[in-house]
Amino acid sequence: MVISLTTDFGDGDGYVGTMKGVMAGIAPGVSTIDITHAIEPQAVAQAAYVLWTSLRYFSPGSVHLVVVDPGVGSARRAIASLTDWGVLVGPDNGVFTYVWAAAPPMLTVTLENPEYRLGDVSATFHGRDVFAPAAAHIAAGVALEAFGPAVTDLVRLPLPSVDEVAGGVRGAVIAIDRFGNAITSIGRLISDGPRLRLAPAFGQVLSATFDADAVNVVGGGRAFGPVRRSYGEVGVGELLALIGSEGMLEIAVNRGHAARELGLGVGDRVSLVGWTQKGADHG
Amino acid sequence: MVISLTTDFGDGDGYVGTMKGVMAGIAPGVSTIDITHAIEPQAVAQAAYVLWTSLRYFSPGSVHLVVVDPGVGSARRAIASLTDWGVLVGPDNGVFTYVWAAAPPMLTVTLENPEYRLGDVSATFHGRDVFAPAAAHIAAGVALEAFGPAVTDLVRLPLPSVDEVAGGVRGAVIAIDRFGNAITSIGRLISDGPRLRLAPAFGQVLSATFDADAVNVVGGGRAFGPVRRSYGEVGVGELLALIGSEGMLEIAVNRGHAARELGLGVGDRVSLVGWTQKGADHG
Amino acid sequence: MVISLTTDFGDGDGYVGTMKGVMAGIAPGVSTIDITHAIEPQAVAQAAYVLWTSLRYFSPGSVHLVVVDPGVGSARRAIASLTDWGVLVGPDNGVFTYVWAAAPPMLTVTLENPEYRLGDVSATFHGRDVFAPAAAHIAAGVALEAFGPAVTDLVRLPLPSVDEVAGGVRGAVIAIDRFGNAITSIGRLISDGPRLRLAPAFGQVLSATFDADAVNVVGGGRAFGPVRRSYGEVGVGELLALIGSEGMLEIAVNRGHAARELGLGVGDRVSLVGWTQKGADHG
Repeated sequence: MVISLTTDFGDGDGYVGTMKGVMAGIAPGVSTIDITHAIEPQAVAQAAYVLWTSLRYFSPGSVHLVVVDPGVGSARRAIASLTDWGVLVGPDNGVFTYVWAAAPPMLTVTLENPEYRLGDVSATFHGRDVFAPAAAHIAAGVALEAFGPAVTDLVRLPLPSVDEVAGGVRGAVIAIDRFGNAITSIGRLISDGPRLRLAPAFGQVLSATFDADAVNVVGGGRAFGPVRRSYGEVGVGELLALIGSEGMLEIAVNRGHAARELGLGVGDRVSLVGWTQKGADHG
Repeated sequence: MVISLTTDFGDGDGYVGTMKGVMAGIAPGVSTIDITHAIEPQAVAQAAYVLWTSLRYFSPGSVHLVVVDPGVGSARRAIASLTDWGVLVGPDNGVFTYVWAAAPPMLTVTLENPEYRLGDVSATFHGRDVFAPAAAHIAAGVALEAFGPAVTDLVRLPLPSVDEVAGGVRGAVIAIDRFGNAITSIGRLISDGPRLRLAPAFGQVLSATFDADAVNVVGGGRAFGPVRRSYGEVGVGELLALIGSEGMLEIAVNRGHAARELGLGVGDRVSLVGWTQKGADHG
Repeated sequence: MVISLTTDFGDGDGYVGTMKGVMAGIAPGVSTIDITHAIEPQAVAQAAYVLWTSLRYFSPGSVHLVVVDPGVGSARRAIASLTDWGVLVGPDNGVFTYVWAAAPPMLTVTLENPEYRLGDVSATFHGRDVFAPAAAHIAAGVALEAFGPAVTDLVRLPLPSVDEVAGGVRGAVIAIDRFGNAITSIGRLISDGPRLRLAPAFGQVLSATFDADAVNVVGGGRAFGPVRRSYGEVGVGELLALIGSEGMLEIAVNRGHAARELGLGVGDRVSLVGWTQKGADHG
């Protein structure tokens, strides 16, 4: 049984190791996988995106522990949510919004049963005292119903948006990765010979078909030609737009750092224009 | 069986992976948990603090491997120490001092038996050649007595201090965490309705009771009001003093970075004043 | 069964966690060990060096997954290579060159069989879609022959060089570690009482014997006296040359940061002069 961990705890304070120590005590056979602990402090939307890219690659029987929790100690609820991508455990602050768009919550409960918390719950470290014990007990086989009542009025963030503009769509940069690639909300793009299909990534109804040769990407004050499939299709140091590993439109520099070069940041607008057909493809 | 790891090796050089490779060869079934590898180079006291916050949350059967070792290759001893918090393995340079204050050493031996070292011990990487093999052999069931003679003259650091001042106590910042919270040596504080009790954290004899409403915290050139229980009790961006996750007095900013804002660093003085009774509570 | 991981993915994007999720799904009982994910983006030679220092300490039955892959999506091949140090899995871009110098490839195959890839291979993240599944299937017992045809025309980097100069040898800095130690290509040095022996580290034919007291190291515009065995042989803050943990000549400052102090970087020349006998020792 696998428990993944995603937090904004960084790697310097022992907070993550402490949570794993708690879990190893409760569920000795479990193995843990770090997704990341480098979420910016309290950056709930950043965590939501990373979870959306990663969780789909885990076995559906996995438990996913998420502690990005600016409201710790306040009235915000602690939840566990069963989905087709595994059981999500964390604060009810919208951090699971993007995952739920692809894998809707089938049963969500609040984590209230003191039997599955540490004896003395602090007001500042629920990762250790509430969430890690819950994740471990779930991995060890405790049913969700044992933790608390079912809830459906879950907190949700706005989803990354893709809007229709003249002749195409406009989205925004939703993440910059380590390589400086600017990943946008425009996707999923599917390369289909001479056509480029846009299929909804986050439950948007918008779908469209583009002529792969005629399409144009505009972002960071620059226009790019056709959408590439890999970095090496352009020379070293050259800019390109391509279909990223999650199917999202991405702006990159072959062996360089596009975000730095173009001054691109999260939230900046990017457009994909030149469509030939709109709303034709669903799926 | 769990082996935790705490080092100042960082994550860039392969040193930690090498140690885990050595351990996996000796004790294949063992699982490892990283506490942190971001201890500042050779910062023994910082490691001592992190261990004190983390190890108590592991099963007592765990082994804790610590390599913060400025004296590697010198005459400093290598030790393994049995405690109620598990078996501690590392250099005899005081790094276990804070843990020992809570979980005294019951049997400590030096790591001398060449049978439980790598064949060719370097003078610069005992983590790989001495400590990791010892931790793995201990996790695999080798008795401490097999490693070397028992020792009791262990190197100890000064403990974080809390001193009596007029009407209260004065301590110091002992850690700044990723969120900028300044954690002090004043603790453990226990919230008890209208009273705030100070119970010794590091074996100090000092204990006291405060009126929760009348108490005042002074640090970083600022005075704070009552001691809070969670960040959300003040507005976003506001300063507060609160009881941290280990029960220590902490100075924080709700969703901000207190250390940066106040210019607070490790060693800076913080006071808690306004007590009503001294030395009355033990336990 | 152990799978080690070495990448340039950093720790912020969830890429590593995603690969581990894929592997846990394919080979549930496997355990993973991170060597490092902080290789500079696309720095193939840096990864080659870290692998050379680390892999020898793993059980020969281990699988080593390496994704430093500037040519992802291009025609570069994906390979798995059986050696005495385990099975190496990664791109055919020379990243295994240094390991192969010590543990030659016995059988290398290309990773072509779609049965052992994810269903929908992206053009930008072969770590997830090709390499991680291959590593997991190999760890689970699939024979190398099942992945694709054997190949022998492998891409290789130049090996770290040691050249003969008047009265000694000249090499270069090949790595700066977290402590600021500048590790050179000169090695392996073996301390043998009054003699210091140079035995080839990377298949060079050059070998020599030095008088341990008369030898001199020149690097970073400075000359150093005898080659030390441990940092503590000089005072705190003093410069020294010593035999590092891999037997390579290293320039360090006791409890300081030599690279910063001397302005040393990868590629800078370092000499070891004063030999007494050349080419006499083999082995």
